[in-house]
Amino acid sequence: MNDVTRRSVLASAGAAAALATVPSTHPSHASVPHAAKQAPGFYRYKLGSFEITVVTDGARTLPLADTFVINAKKDEVNAALAAAFMERDKITIPYSPIVVNTGSRLAIIDAGNGEAALAQSKGGAGQLQANLAAAGIDPKAINAVIISHFHADHVNGLLTPDNKPAFANAEILVPAAEWRFWMDDGEMSRAPKGRMEDLFKNNRRVFDALGRKVTPYEWNKEVVPGITAVETAGHTVGHTSYVIASGSSRVYVQSDVTNVPALFVRNPGWHAFFDQDPVKAEQTRRKVYDMVVVEKMPVQGFHYPFPSLAHLEKDGSGYRLVPVPWSPVI
Amino acid sequence: MNDVTRRSVLASAGAAAALATVPSTHPSHASVPHAAKQAPGFYRYKLGSFEITVVTDGARTLPLADTFVINAKKDEVNAALAAAFMERDKITIPYSPIVVNTGSRLAIIDAGNGEAALAQSKGGAGQLQANLAAAGIDPKAINAVIISHFHADHVNGLLTPDNKPAFANAEILVPAAEWRFWMDDGEMSRAPKGRMEDLFKNNRRVFDALGRKVTPYEWNKEVVPGITAVETAGHTVGHTSYVIASGSSRVYVQSDVTNVPALFVRNPGWHAFFDQDPVKAEQTRRKVYDMVVVEKMPVQGFHYPFPSLAHLEKDGSGYRLVPVPWSPVI
Repeated sequence: MNDVTRRSVLASAGAAAALATVPSTHPSHASVPHAAKQAPGFYRYKLGSFEITVVTDGARTLPLADTFVINAKKDEVNAALAAAFMERDKITIPYSPIVVNTGSRLAIIDAGNGEAALAQSKGGAGQLQANLAAAGIDPKAINAVIISHFHADHVNGLLTPDNKPAFANAEILVPAAEWRFWMDDGEMSRAPKGRMEDLFKNNRRVFDALGRKVTPYEWNKEVVPGITAVETAGHTVGHTSYVIASGSSRVYVQSDVTNVPALFVRNPGWHAFFDQDPVKAEQTRRKVYDMVVVEKMPVQGFHYPFPSLAHLEKDGSGYRLVPVPWSPVI
Repeated sequence: MNDVTRRSVLASAGAAAALATVPSTHPSHASVPHAAKQAPGFYRYKLGSFEITVVTDGARTLPLADTFVINAKKDEVNAALAAAFMERDKITIPYSPIVVNTGSRLAIIDAGNGEAALAQSKGGAGQLQANLAAAGIDPKAINAVIISHFHADHVNGLLTPDNKPAFANAEILVPAAEWRFWMDDGEMSRAPKGRMEDLFKNNRRVFDALGRKVTPYEWNKEVVPGITAVETAGHTVGHTSYVIASGSSRVYVQSDVTNVPALFVRNPGWHAFFDQDPVKAEQTRRKVYDMVVVEKMPVQGFHYPFPSLAHLEKDGSGYRLVPVPWSPVI
């Protein structure tokens, strides 16, 4: 013990003896409660004159289903998890929407799982609104919600737990191809029971609660100025990615071109069970990754580990994430 | 534009016309100011029954000196930066102290650059106190400051800008070998002019302001229960790393066994100009990295990108960082 500390302890012990009802304020060697709370999950960077805020919706850890990768054995998947220093027989899927402030528009790309997911996931997923608040972003100030595709972890956050619009003043922009497919009664009637039928029902539930008031957008056009929609179908029929461009800076927002990178960036030939057209999804994946490698374009990945921004490099038969280092200043 | 938005815009336009002095509260398509402020730089994880909070002191970007790596050409260093998708001719060095709550002790390992560095680095370095506050950690509650070695980015944060103790109630624990070397007047008198002499002077300045009240600690012993000091000399004569252990969980706190991983983890044979004994530093580096690879022990690296926690894998003649994915829950 150093002299300062010894003196303080003695002084504090004396004070405590003299006035026993006043708790000692000297904390040395006292037990300090754990904070037990993670830091808020947001991260900012500039892209030209735009400001991008990655705002995580959290992550969900699930048992590794035997068919999580439909064309690889569970042992192979576990080996890939081990190579990434991850636990076997489990899969943790993060979710990271981004808010883009273009100056004229305050847009969010994808809406996450919704706060209703918090209870069911024990706080893991559904964190978007809390993290928006931590980032100082009022959901009422968001004037565009851009949806990449109609899976529950992207659209359910359009609603509050009591089924009101979570972004009360926002235009809801959806891929035209996605809108046509999921809102088509014929497609719904032909959907296999189980997951596909459930997705149709969930999408009707969400968009009916919004009065189906959406703005469908087309590929190869700007959804809002500076954010161009790019066709990356396969994961779903209308699955969309984006190029955000400001000045000479660009970032590729890949949406679900891959799910968890430790599996699907490393093994682009693996087919996740939730890819609607897995062969097309793989073609899209290889095309997109070959392009971003050549262009050295940073990629924002919805299912990459937060803050979900990385460069890609080719590595053997697959690719590898090189995360952009966290910058403590903007 | 969807119907809700159009109605809102019309309503808001009408209100504005009727009462022109009241600003419209409808934010749709209105310009929203950039937040222009990074998220607080802290990150928490459990290690057995311990809680560890990585609290970054920020980062500093410097022009790449010709002699930054004394045994590699600047072109080779620039090639390594390019391979890591970093800008050439610059080097960004992050600083990440960690706070360890063992239950009985609240310890911080290394003190960062000190708040006085904020002005000179334009807010890049010297963020520790602000990030401790964001993490809800009162510096007065910290009862042990464990110093790994006596370089300015590790010891200057022991003092406030007005040269008072920054951790008023903490025992200051220093490596015995480091204390002997830097406080030895003979060693100081033999120090080469320039950087080494400046380091001696800086260390006298810092520890004299603290009345030289420190607790020297020895290698291969617990500095505080659960944190064992490990000899990793070379970077300095008394340079120290740590194994933190709780239950069956361990993390290796490497201090400056490597500086920026994109250069020195990838190229363990490269000698940074600030290594006091570069040959010994390289031997230490290879020994430590071979060990953590075999043991699969996660490494907390003071100069790794925040949150500075990674696994290591062997890759060709060097090693590669596999960052531990950010967990949105503890």
